[in-house]
Amino acid sequence: MVKVVAGVDIGGTGTKFGLVDPNGEVLSESKMPTAVGGTFECFVEKLAEEIQMMLADTGFELEGIGIGAPSGNYYTGNISGASNLPWKGDLPMVDEMLKHFEVPIVLSNDANATAMGEMVFGGAKGMRDFVMITLGTGLGSGIVSGGQLIIGSQSMAAELGHVLVHSDGKGRACNCGRKGCLETYASATGIKKTMIELLESSREESLLRNVPINEISSRMIASAAQKGDKLALEAFDYTGRLLGVQLANIVSVMNPEAIFLFGGLSLSGDLIFDTTRKYMEQNLLSIYKGSVKLLPSQLGAQGAAIVGAASLAHQQKDYLHFEIS
Amino acid sequence: MVKVVAGVDIGGTGTKFGLVDPNGEVLSESKMPTAVGGTFECFVEKLAEEIQMMLADTGFELEGIGIGAPSGNYYTGNISGASNLPWKGDLPMVDEMLKHFEVPIVLSNDANATAMGEMVFGGAKGMRDFVMITLGTGLGSGIVSGGQLIIGSQSMAAELGHVLVHSDGKGRACNCGRKGCLETYASATGIKKTMIELLESSREESLLRNVPINEISSRMIASAAQKGDKLALEAFDYTGRLLGVQLANIVSVMNPEAIFLFGGLSLSGDLIFDTTRKYMEQNLLSIYKGSVKLLPSQLGAQGAAIVGAASLAHQQKDYLHFEIS
Repeated sequence: MVKVVAGVDIGGTGTKFGLVDPNGEVLSESKMPTAVGGTFECFVEKLAEEIQMMLADTGFELEGIGIGAPSGNYYTGNISGASNLPWKGDLPMVDEMLKHFEVPIVLSNDANATAMGEMVFGGAKGMRDFVMITLGTGLGSGIVSGGQLIIGSQSMAAELGHVLVHSDGKGRACNCGRKGCLETYASATGIKKTMIELLESSREESLLRNVPINEISSRMIASAAQKGDKLALEAFDYTGRLLGVQLANIVSVMNPEAIFLFGGLSLSGDLIFDTTRKYMEQNLLSIYKGSVKLLPSQLGAQGAAIVGAASLAHQQKDYLHFEIS
Repeated sequence: MVKVVAGVDIGGTGTKFGLVDPNGEVLSESKMPTAVGGTFECFVEKLAEEIQMMLADTGFELEGIGIGAPSGNYYTGNISGASNLPWKGDLPMVDEMLKHFEVPIVLSNDANATAMGEMVFGGAKGMRDFVMITLGTGLGSGIVSGGQLIIGSQSMAAELGHVLVHSDGKGRACNCGRKGCLETYASATGIKKTMIELLESSREESLLRNVPINEISSRMIASAAQKGDKLALEAFDYTGRLLGVQLANIVSVMNPEAIFLFGGLSLSGDLIFDTTRKYMEQNLLSIYKGSVKLLPSQLGAQGAAIVGAASLAHQQKDYLHFEIS
């Protein structure tokens, strides 16, 4: 019988789930609205039912469940205070799921899930020390050291998006309430803000001059930069500089073999990789120079969240909420 | 028979060594010049002989050896390219020692040894996630996550002294050749530089106005600050601010339970702890506020290096260069 692990990715609006084989292939997948039924208990009930049906349809044998969710706590198995989910408070995700399944269940946040996915199924196979950066609306991160996820004392490690770029209380306002967080610069939202600032402060011609400000997207900036648009290129240079310097700093902390970039902005290829790599190298302590690979994630965007979540159950045996038999 | 672990601390001029019991008591200790005999082989020969004699004298049973040395590589057991030791190149420290002892031998750098010492014998007993900062001539660090030392892909992790405080290529020149490294501000050397800058740029009265610049020490600045000297207090405030902001950043990476300060500058007590804690708290992401303890090391300065080194052998069984029977 085909043995599979279920991967569940809980997002603010939709929840994706699927069955993943030991090679990282998603054999079956589906999605549902996260707000289904209104209460958290209804959500879990419906999710469990859907996974049960998927298993019945395919005849696969379930070996474990990995769940990626915002503010997913590794130690408690609870989702605690996630601002973008429809429910409030401490949500006993793992305990509720264990009412429906007698397999190991692991919960973590989505960036950690992506990092584990990269190690188990992606470009970090065989690596023991690497950093995963997800460049989406914000900047998420997962860190693996000595083959283990860095979890932290309260399951809140690896918030690189909130490393302060400025030490003087200056910088862009962040959703977290502080100023100067890295994700206000290095993210899809950040580069958009940079582009708008450049358009406002410069008289340089630009393909984006005629686009309404709230329609400018990171993809549009990338497309303009590829056509040689000076201001768009400058936006990438600025983004790569701020990201590169902070990656140089994280290298001084973790001494990773590689840093992976994942998510929307990472798809702009050389535009983001070349600039970031240049500034990272320039700012590295000499003992690290030339030794850290900056790589694109090998998890395809399609299914990456499910595969990442599934990998949590594959790998983190120490923290399973149920003994593997 | 009393079972002991030998701790060896190799420094630029002197090497300390001693026998440590399972409670962290140094039962016997001694030192010798690091340059003894001229060659690295002579040094190891002499060190081994001294430890053998110490064992013969006391009748204790040796269970392992832990060695702390600048640029000590955990994985290879070599000391590689340490600029302040009398020998050059790759020095096979562990292999050479294994010619003399049939016990597990672990090598690491001194800051990692201090971190392990804190966990095994000091204030971090029972903690699984903490950061150790040593404030001496420079700023050294050791990081423990999930109960394990963060070693890094090339055994060069936890160089927090070389995190860049400025992202714009500005800041004080560091011995590493770059500008703006944290240790140029937060260290005994750093606060001295700050004090001198303040004396030069201000007309404020100060107890240190009549001290020749190259005689000013961090202890003198602390003493003046304790007497209410405004500029000395300002020097501590500035040091605490730069250190506090970077500790807030490292909290975003590691989510530690505590941060320990060790070394000369940490002995200035409230002067450094209160300012650093204030600025760290001010700059913490809200989810961490109030949750990270800033504590003085519980390893006494006397013997800390030996105890720290010995703890390496106690704890890091994964990386021992010899199986524990």
